[in-house]
Amino acid sequence: MAKLKVGMIGGGGPGSFFGMVHNRAIALDASRELVAGAMRTDAKAALRAAKDYGIKGYINYQAMLEAVQSGEQALDYVTIVTPNFAHYEPAKAFLQAGIPVLCEKPMTMTVAEAQDLARIVKRKKVPFVLAHTYTGHPMMMLAKQMIKDGDIGEVRKVDSWYNQGWLATDLEKSGQQQAAWRTDPKRTGISNCGGDIGTHAFVAATWVTGLGVKKVSARLNTFVKGRVLDDDFNTICELENGGTAVITATQIAVGYRNDNGFRVFGTKGSIEWHQERAESLLVRHGDGRDVTYWTGAEFDLPAEVSSYFRVPSGHNEDFFPALANLHTTIERQIRKGRGEKGIPVAFPHPGVEEGVAGMKFIKAAVDSSKKKGAWTRL
Amino acid sequence: MAKLKVGMIGGGGPGSFFGMVHNRAIALDASRELVAGAMRTDAKAALRAAKDYGIKGYINYQAMLEAVQSGEQALDYVTIVTPNFAHYEPAKAFLQAGIPVLCEKPMTMTVAEAQDLARIVKRKKVPFVLAHTYTGHPMMMLAKQMIKDGDIGEVRKVDSWYNQGWLATDLEKSGQQQAAWRTDPKRTGISNCGGDIGTHAFVAATWVTGLGVKKVSARLNTFVKGRVLDDDFNTICELENGGTAVITATQIAVGYRNDNGFRVFGTKGSIEWHQERAESLLVRHGDGRDVTYWTGAEFDLPAEVSSYFRVPSGHNEDFFPALANLHTTIERQIRKGRGEKGIPVAFPHPGVEEGVAGMKFIKAAVDSSKKKGAWTRL
Amino acid sequence: MAKLKVGMIGGGGPGSFFGMVHNRAIALDASRELVAGAMRTDAKAALRAAKDYGIKGYINYQAMLEAVQSGEQALDYVTIVTPNFAHYEPAKAFLQAGIPVLCEKPMTMTVAEAQDLARIVKRKKVPFVLAHTYTGHPMMMLAKQMIKDGDIGEVRKVDSWYNQGWLATDLEKSGQQQAAWRTDPKRTGISNCGGDIGTHAFVAATWVTGLGVKKVSARLNTFVKGRVLDDDFNTICELENGGTAVITATQIAVGYRNDNGFRVFGTKGSIEWHQERAESLLVRHGDGRDVTYWTGAEFDLPAEVSSYFRVPSGHNEDFFPALANLHTTIERQIRKGRGEKGIPVAFPHPGVEEGVAGMKFIKAAVDSSKKKGAWTRL
Amino acid sequence: MAKLKVGMIGGGGPGSFFGMVHNRAIALDASRELVAGAMRTDAKAALRAAKDYGIKGYINYQAMLEAVQSGEQALDYVTIVTPNFAHYEPAKAFLQAGIPVLCEKPMTMTVAEAQDLARIVKRKKVPFVLAHTYTGHPMMMLAKQMIKDGDIGEVRKVDSWYNQGWLATDLEKSGQQQAAWRTDPKRTGISNCGGDIGTHAFVAATWVTGLGVKKVSARLNTFVKGRVLDDDFNTICELENGGTAVITATQIAVGYRNDNGFRVFGTKGSIEWHQERAESLLVRHGDGRDVTYWTGAEFDLPAEVSSYFRVPSGHNEDFFPALANLHTTIERQIRKGRGEKGIPVAFPHPGVEEGVAGMKFIKAAVDSSKKKGAWTRL
Repeated sequence: MAKLKVGMIGGGGPGSFFGMVHNRAIALDASRELVAGAMRTDAKAALRAAKDYGIKGYINYQAMLEAVQSGEQALDYVTIVTPNFAHYEPAKAFLQAGIPVLCEKPMTMTVAEAQDLARIVKRKKVPFVLAHTYTGHPMMMLAKQMIKDGDIGEVRKVDSWYNQGWLATDLEKSGQQQAAWRTDPKRTGISNCGGDIGTHAFVAATWVTGLGVKKVSARLNTFVKGRVLDDDFNTICELENGGTAVITATQIAVGYRNDNGFRVFGTKGSIEWHQERAESLLVRHGDGRDVTYWTGAEFDLPAEVSSYFRVPSGHNEDFFPALANLHTTIERQIRKGRGEKGIPVAFPHPGVEEGVAGMKFIKAAVDSSKKKGAWTRL
Repeated sequence: MAKLKVGMIGGGGPGSFFGMVHNRAIALDASRELVAGAMRTDAKAALRAAKDYGIKGYINYQAMLEAVQSGEQALDYVTIVTPNFAHYEPAKAFLQAGIPVLCEKPMTMTVAEAQDLARIVKRKKVPFVLAHTYTGHPMMMLAKQMIKDGDIGEVRKVDSWYNQGWLATDLEKSGQQQAAWRTDPKRTGISNCGGDIGTHAFVAATWVTGLGVKKVSARLNTFVKGRVLDDDFNTICELENGGTAVITATQIAVGYRNDNGFRVFGTKGSIEWHQERAESLLVRHGDGRDVTYWTGAEFDLPAEVSSYFRVPSGHNEDFFPALANLHTTIERQIRKGRGEKGIPVAFPHPGVEEGVAGMKFIKAAVDSSKKKGAWTRL
Repeated sequence: MAKLKVGMIGGGGPGSFFGMVHNRAIALDASRELVAGAMRTDAKAALRAAKDYGIKGYINYQAMLEAVQSGEQALDYVTIVTPNFAHYEPAKAFLQAGIPVLCEKPMTMTVAEAQDLARIVKRKKVPFVLAHTYTGHPMMMLAKQMIKDGDIGEVRKVDSWYNQGWLATDLEKSGQQQAAWRTDPKRTGISNCGGDIGTHAFVAATWVTGLGVKKVSARLNTFVKGRVLDDDFNTICELENGGTAVITATQIAVGYRNDNGFRVFGTKGSIEWHQERAESLLVRHGDGRDVTYWTGAEFDLPAEVSSYFRVPSGHNEDFFPALANLHTTIERQIRKGRGEKGIPVAFPHPGVEEGVAGMKFIKAAVDSSKKKGAWTRL
Repeated sequence: MAKLKVGMIGGGGPGSFFGMVHNRAIALDASRELVAGAMRTDAKAALRAAKDYGIKGYINYQAMLEAVQSGEQALDYVTIVTPNFAHYEPAKAFLQAGIPVLCEKPMTMTVAEAQDLARIVKRKKVPFVLAHTYTGHPMMMLAKQMIKDGDIGEVRKVDSWYNQGWLATDLEKSGQQQAAWRTDPKRTGISNCGGDIGTHAFVAATWVTGLGVKKVSARLNTFVKGRVLDDDFNTICELENGGTAVITATQIAVGYRNDNGFRVFGTKGSIEWHQERAESLLVRHGDGRDVTYWTGAEFDLPAEVSSYFRVPSGHNEDFFPALANLHTTIERQIRKGRGEKGIPVAFPHPGVEEGVAGMKFIKAAVDSSKKKGAWTRL
């Protein structure tokens, strides 16, 4: 089975964090390899960054795309790890060329851009995965599968949250790159906290339950002086089945790292998951027992989930494998699309539709907050 | 040191739960004893219930009060454990007679009643404690003390929640008494979930931080068919210092027991507490360490808190001692008021002001929910 | 139902800890009351201590026994909370007089004394409960019940431990009373750490499994200079069914409070319990699920256990109720013995046989350690 | 920085587990790549396995070594992932050729073989790392560093354990390869449970504390009928400073996965670590606070440890990165040895001395158990 060849757009800056993370995720399984990249805005820096990675460098994504189209460069898919503002254009270009894309979240800067990508994906029928890393944790996948299978009955309510503390002070003024672009409207869009981590909480609420959000009432705060965008994000949402979701995120929770998680309450049971102990899932059915499931414990878990396990339970796979699982999903889609045999089923990880919904959610939340919490349709 | 003599109003019914709980809390320390009670509505049943408790019975609270006033019955304070609708009248009567009251929550049926009690308490200067049991957990007290002492800086945000699952079905139709009165507007007031457990989450948010709620945007749900009042309660609140509190409660979280807790995020640190592991407190200051404190570990904890410890840490005191601590507080207030020497300082547990605030909060939340989440002043 | 009248022997000293703990446990349920005590060695101090408790005082246990026998003093049972050396004589005297005894552990100073008590209990058929407080935690009771019911198959192995840190320094030299008598051979017997907390770990291993220890290989240490007895206790044991138990205890684990617990591995499943989170029990059957049970969650739990619950799950009962449950057990035995109707079944809490086994275990462990770990029969 | 080229010996069988695990660990960082392998005993199968990995295949390790020595094949180090019996010969051959080795544990079949490797390593001064994966967890490294720095004073006692349940039945008879070779004396050596996982607990006790074991008293059990070697392993050990270690391991703990961990009790503090929540470390100093540290939280952690972090705390790195860290260590040793600049310090991960000690420990434990627990020198 030949390795899939992957190209990377972005990810090469000195303060870049996710470029290397994706590189590790690509390499984790022996079935993919990073081979090329257009990794920085500055042409020279882009070539140097690629050289540091030991891959073929391009001065920009257009050059890389041309090389693919001319047959010079073999690429099975690209992964886009640029800041938010630089997702849309390369995604569009590669998708139009029929090249599958695994794109960082939030998907775009605007709803219109997101919808445009969705149209292209549908028309071209090209694989597209949105890098909501946490959805790659098998226990989060199991949560979705259980709910789909009716294990907890109909969903009534969801609590979904993401607490971080790294932006509790004006870190962006210190020159820290991650903080700088996330708090800059030009590079991050209309929301900082909502866009960066509120979208994770949103995906947990909607992707896991299979239920969209119809409308939202929001209160966004900016606690740190001098900051333009929100660093705290609070919403109450109406789900499309009439249920309620409370979706919150904050970046000012001093000492909190990545306290992301959700509780889903159904008519017959409840499910709870925490990112910081991601390889377990707590399920209750109201019979006095709390049942904990673990990644790697195959038993009677559905193959949709267990086909993503790498080691038996008790050795936590955790962060890099979770992201690698999203690469596995696009890999399975690609290989299946080519008619390769024996490819396990690809889990329905977030794609372009979830990206559109996420952008609409952020837009509606920002609007609602401006209108004093008025219920706003997505 | 003579034992304080306690009278109980309510608590004698066959399905009553909190009568016996208070009895245990009163008896836990050797300094108080339950001696009399007007424990049920029906006169005969009231006398029989008191006999079962081995105490002097009265046919109603008026009779008990008369006996006190005539000097027949010595009582140092009364505890009111009736359903919500039957708090106000006996509380008023005893307070007006200058007899201290420890009253179950929520304090009254209406804001006006609550304000009336507050006026009497102020005028008569008589001790009044509101039985928010969880505030009796020393680690919840420590949270309040630390915030007051500035340990986490200025409070920016609070998450406070209470998840239960016992009303996920129409249990009230089965004849279960606890469910029946709580879901009946005549006995419970304008809110079921909000009044019963939302008030706990409200107290956690406000009493612990020392910050009132100015206004609220709410969405109340009734998920179980045939139920009149809310069984799910969601709010976003503006605190009086401009901070935000997300206060939620639900009774439809299948398999959840008493998942009550809070996270407070300040400018310099964060504090987190969970009722189901009540004897520990998690404090973070953003230095990479999570610090856990434990009830019973004296060391340099403030005497306001440590004077409530009964055993060294590692043997969890938990539920009954927490409630007993509220009795200890009213006991300390009473003994101090009489000039007894050597009485440790009484912790500022919730009283009549917190009761008024709680009633205003429930009222404002119900109103806001009816007005589609419009921000509503307390 | 008349309250049982309880007498206390010991427990009145200024540094006494367990006198008040038993008092709380007796008072927790409305069915018992402490009425008399011979609480200190010095006659005058004994009377003063009783007065402080608000009970009838006696100058010594003999005087209290005489008062009972002469009909002056009604007592349904006595509880003995003296240091180890002063258990045997009063226990013997009251048992011989046919008065039930709830006695602190370890039961006696020597195996011979323990066997003597056992003979008396058998001959006189008088209720006797050994105050292994932790066995009163319903989840520890559930563990025993499950194993008895075959839920985890045949027991192969037990890990049982108790880690404390309070004697990591020579606290006994500071005048701390608890430390002083426990490290003094005259008052505590041949073993400090083994006798005080090793017996808890021993009971967890044997009472929970229903399996005795046949022989033991031990290594006892004294880490703190100037101390005569062990402050660290390590054994490997052969169970009577051929299985193995690793039973350890230490008092030099700095910062550890009462980290007592056990894991039992059977042919079909495993059970794990921790005293510091005593109200839950972890059960595994090798099917990829970890199942947690909780005190108070009735459902299909056996009535032997659930009849001891006081509140629904989610409000942890914990330490005082656990000890109260042992008083409940002797109370049920007494009431049943008198032919009272409707008394729930008394759980088989540790009694005189467990006391004898505990003394033999300590003796054998001390002997084995002296003989360089030679396997020694109990 | 050119990638180091790695060869693999073993790891190619259909039931092989650790071949792929090492492959992932090698690939996780962009600084190494697996390029060649002698992956199975059968020549044809070996070539096919290598082809599946997409690397250069050799019919056996000798052929691979010859290719290296002839200059045909560039290899910077090899990793040996064969069953125990096939570690010694290839390790010896490559070490003698001056080629660094990262070898699976236990290091050899006998003490003599282990000592032979130690002599070669010393003489040739060639990097050698023993693949005790868990020592690659930064929080386990931090534990070692803290103890070395005196943070908990002098070590008095260690509890170290490893509980698994996968061999609670005679899985080896089902044809499961992992079970088959581990329970076969010819392939695994004189101990199954002790050699496979007891060595992990041994390393935790000795490598973390920096203290060797002087002598051991052991009881080994074989619970599953028909099995020749131990499946349960219990020891009490004397440390070289006079302290005590209780080191246990079992494979019959039904439902337990990889419950490996340790508690170290020093004169000034205690440290506790659990493999199944490997990215945190619990430290206590007896001041009433439990302090938890987390991988990725740099702050004032020593660079020896923090230089191994890949992502900020809150995204758990866990299993693959832990093993990758051992590859990082041999990589740093190799690069430093070549005079490359800017290479961070290599953490003192287990090497050939720890391998010798482990073999001696297993031998002494097996001997002691045969001699009824007699204290046996290593």
